[in-house]
Amino acid sequence: MTYKALNMDEKFGKFAEHWSPRVIAEMNDVQFKLAKIKGEFVWHTHEETDEVFIVFGGQMRIEFRDGVVHLKAGEMFVVPKGVEHKPVAEEECQIMLIEPRGVVNTGEAGGTLTADNNVWI
Amino acid sequence: MTYKALNMDEKFGKFAEHWSPRVIAEMNDVQFKLAKIKGEFVWHTHEETDEVFIVFGGQMRIEFRDGVVHLKAGEMFVVPKGVEHKPVAEEECQIMLIEPRGVVNTGEAGGTLTADNNVWI
Repeated sequence: MTYKALNMDEKFGKFAEHWSPRVIAEMNDVQFKLAKIKGEFVWHTHEETDEVFIVFGGQMRIEFRDGVVHLKAGEMFVVPKGVEHKPVAEEECQIMLIEPRGVVNTGEAGGTLTADNNVWI
Repeated sequence: MTYKALNMDEKFGKFAEHWSPRVIAEMNDVQFKLAKIKGEFVWHTHEETDEVFIVFGGQMRIEFRDGVVHLKAGEMFVVPKGVEHKPVAEEECQIMLIEPRGVVNTGEAGGTLTADNNVWI
């Protein structure tokens, strides 16, 4: 039989909401989520895990209390656990987040941007 | 300060060998490896872990005993643990492998294509 690959463009076409990660796959206990982001997120921290950002379209930055990293398509960054950060995208940016199952997008900060953390597409 | 993103094109430019994954990042105990592949790999199995393939350039297929999946740039596939598989690329293909630290590329099969599994670039 022919198995089907996960196609990022096809998956990104399935939702429009910003700051609302969708799970597309799992490897062991690690989830692969796609998100569309635009504007400024909230400062937050994941105390229990590192978090990977891979940009598939557009560009973004991740602000830290002591600096910033700029990311464009084809680039990735690992935010170490316990490091406060704030993702920002001036224009809509398409990203993949990789992190253990159960991570909440706003970390310890909570608030109105907190999304359901296990919505699959 | 300005932190530096990991740029896939830049990293792929740092090595030429086929079937020789290079580690570019870790998230907790999970490693992100880049590899250039061409030709047929060996049939092998990872008994302890799933394994993620993401294609960044070119195209490849993963053969299974009961079928096949075709992958091109912007596509990914999760090979479930314990499932025998054989990656194949007719032309050079640039991929990212995501799997726990310590995984050996040839799994239980061994042989001449077995690569050092912790070479960083």
